[in-house]
Amino acid sequence: MSKVHSVKNPIPHIDERAREADHPTSLVAHFGADKPLRLDCGVELTPFQIAYQTYGALNADRSNAILLCHALTGDQHVANVHPVTGKNGWWETLVGPGKAVDTNRYFVICSNVVGGCLGSTGPASTNPATGKVWGLEFPVITIPDMVRAQAMLIDRLGIETLFGVVGGSMGGMQVLQWTAAYPDRVFSALPIACATRHSAQNIAFHEVGRQAVMADPDWRGGRYVEEGTDPHRGLGVARMAAHITYLSDAALHRKFGRRMQDRELPTFSFDADFQVESYLRYQGSSFVERFDANSYLYLTRAMDYFDIAADHNGVLAEAFRETITRFCVVSFTSDWLFPTSESRDVVHALNAGGARVSFTEIETDRGHDAFLLDVPEFIDMVRAFLESAGTARGLTAGH
Amino acid sequence: MSKVHSVKNPIPHIDERAREADHPTSLVAHFGADKPLRLDCGVELTPFQIAYQTYGALNADRSNAILLCHALTGDQHVANVHPVTGKNGWWETLVGPGKAVDTNRYFVICSNVVGGCLGSTGPASTNPATGKVWGLEFPVITIPDMVRAQAMLIDRLGIETLFGVVGGSMGGMQVLQWTAAYPDRVFSALPIACATRHSAQNIAFHEVGRQAVMADPDWRGGRYVEEGTDPHRGLGVARMAAHITYLSDAALHRKFGRRMQDRELPTFSFDADFQVESYLRYQGSSFVERFDANSYLYLTRAMDYFDIAADHNGVLAEAFRETITRFCVVSFTSDWLFPTSESRDVVHALNAGGARVSFTEIETDRGHDAFLLDVPEFIDMVRAFLESAGTARGLTAGH
Repeated sequence: MSKVHSVKNPIPHIDERAREADHPTSLVAHFGADKPLRLDCGVELTPFQIAYQTYGALNADRSNAILLCHALTGDQHVANVHPVTGKNGWWETLVGPGKAVDTNRYFVICSNVVGGCLGSTGPASTNPATGKVWGLEFPVITIPDMVRAQAMLIDRLGIETLFGVVGGSMGGMQVLQWTAAYPDRVFSALPIACATRHSAQNIAFHEVGRQAVMADPDWRGGRYVEEGTDPHRGLGVARMAAHITYLSDAALHRKFGRRMQDRELPTFSFDADFQVESYLRYQGSSFVERFDANSYLYLTRAMDYFDIAADHNGVLAEAFRETITRFCVVSFTSDWLFPTSESRDVVHALNAGGARVSFTEIETDRGHDAFLLDVPEFIDMVRAFLESAGTARGLTAGH
Repeated sequence: MSKVHSVKNPIPHIDERAREADHPTSLVAHFGADKPLRLDCGVELTPFQIAYQTYGALNADRSNAILLCHALTGDQHVANVHPVTGKNGWWETLVGPGKAVDTNRYFVICSNVVGGCLGSTGPASTNPATGKVWGLEFPVITIPDMVRAQAMLIDRLGIETLFGVVGGSMGGMQVLQWTAAYPDRVFSALPIACATRHSAQNIAFHEVGRQAVMADPDWRGGRYVEEGTDPHRGLGVARMAAHITYLSDAALHRKFGRRMQDRELPTFSFDADFQVESYLRYQGSSFVERFDANSYLYLTRAMDYFDIAADHNGVLAEAFRETITRFCVVSFTSDWLFPTSESRDVVHALNAGGARVSFTEIETDRGHDAFLLDVPEFIDMVRAFLESAGTARGLTAGH
């Protein structure tokens, strides 16, 4: 009576994905026993590596470096073809020659976060102590851990002060953490569509995603690589649930409404009758090609734990006391994952700390994902903020 | 390094649940070959049964009957101890002697929807043609199908006109369908926290739930009863995702915030560190005790397909043309699953049809689930509407 399709198996790029975890198609900074990464959980991670990409050139003053911080499922491939998927970089709307983050002018760096799966040490990497994939033996990491690793990379690159730190969502959390942890090292900061802590609703959505992964028998208690399985069904479901939160109701309505997929009448089955179902299934199945399930657990956990105020005696403004950074805080009207109210909380704390801060709420129906999309008002705003900061920093065009 | 718990297995009440599907602890109306249920998909379902509960007594005029329509995961056990879980009825806040839906005054009926799993014919029932559980061989059903079956039950009970039809969420959809399909048989109608069609975002959330179920290998293409398995992990994840949509961000924040579960510091693991995680896991694991996974697929599908306007040449007002029913439409301010705007659309269509309609938006932070909770303003409103309609109907107190 009823035809049924569930999330499908193939996973075309699983071998490339595994290769990238240890041997990324990227620049790599190795940190040996003399440079352990001190993690919030108490573990010293050593050795470890950070995979990163750069665009543009560092100027003689070493004063034009912008660090981009990627979001939960992003990576270092901001503005080049992705080595696993073959798709364009995730922020090519914003980053490139002549673009808002102008690689003719700035030296742009983006590193895969520690805990990620595209070449920085994480659960998908090989544990040198055992010769096996880390899996759940990898220590739980936090947003401050990610930023601590980035600071070690920036040291390695010989950069004392970043001209800018820019990122959205989990990337925005890293931006805020940078300014709190290294107030002297950030000239300007662009935290976009983020918050200083994860809300109960957001923790709840992450927990659904983690349970979806862990409920997949092919997850094998996290040892799926050793056992030759892949929890792609669970991870696909996790991605589908998360993806809904990245869009707005209005955007889904505008894109899909109740339109049927390649037909006019319902099939009275569990086929993807509606376009929105087909779209979500695609989001799930394409995601699992490029992402490691354990890494998804670790990075969602890091976001859940993030709470800058808690690290400063419960007083958010303490985190930004006497900061010298110029801030531009950005939110989007239809973002219900990190609503504008949470950006306002950041702005209030910055004001209380006496910071130089501007705040823009961009009118759009495109939801949380707006920061990744071609939203002209947003892109113009990033350009203007960086140009103004560049003038203050003494950067001239072409350098 | 990391302790991991996923949704747990036991499923204490699986045998009772299976028993209830064919032999419910309820009244049962059997419909034989002379009374097939004509389904929208074109199938005639026969034989079939409808399990129902009643409270109070039908008066001599047969004019005091109220049909309550249950929501997606509800059932007929409105105001008695549940035969599977042993818990109180799901609407005891509202229904009982002296309560807003006063069983001293009204004859209250609630039937398990066709496609459900508590004794009305559905995918968990035994297919008399094969002697096996229907599973996915059961035809896909719609909200109009559910209402058609209810009308046959009401005929069987010898009731021509219902004094009231009342329900929230999927129950509210049934209320609206009753007034559209049987305009002469409904004296008053209370559609609560619902819509005349399912939005793209709501279809998307349902699709995530279905994919979570179907991704569970123990689902076995829907044949889990025959094969002795149960897709409780997939269904648990589906329930967790859905449960978030039943609450509001504010309610989650008020109830849980970022409070830790039985500890003050993070465990740096994938344990349920936060109370909201522990709560969601409980919601998932308790749900699977009482609900059939295939039934969940069918009922979510029925909601997705619901679109009254589409059944009336795309003009919603056509559905309610010259209705004689008195309507009271109710929404809740913090309900983001069925936001007030969708209730307003109902009201506009009713107004365009010249209906007698009142509309109340209840101020609460408790989200979609508010209709199931002790929200005094809501309960008072239901009482007042029914009393006013009762006066118009010539019902006197005590009858």
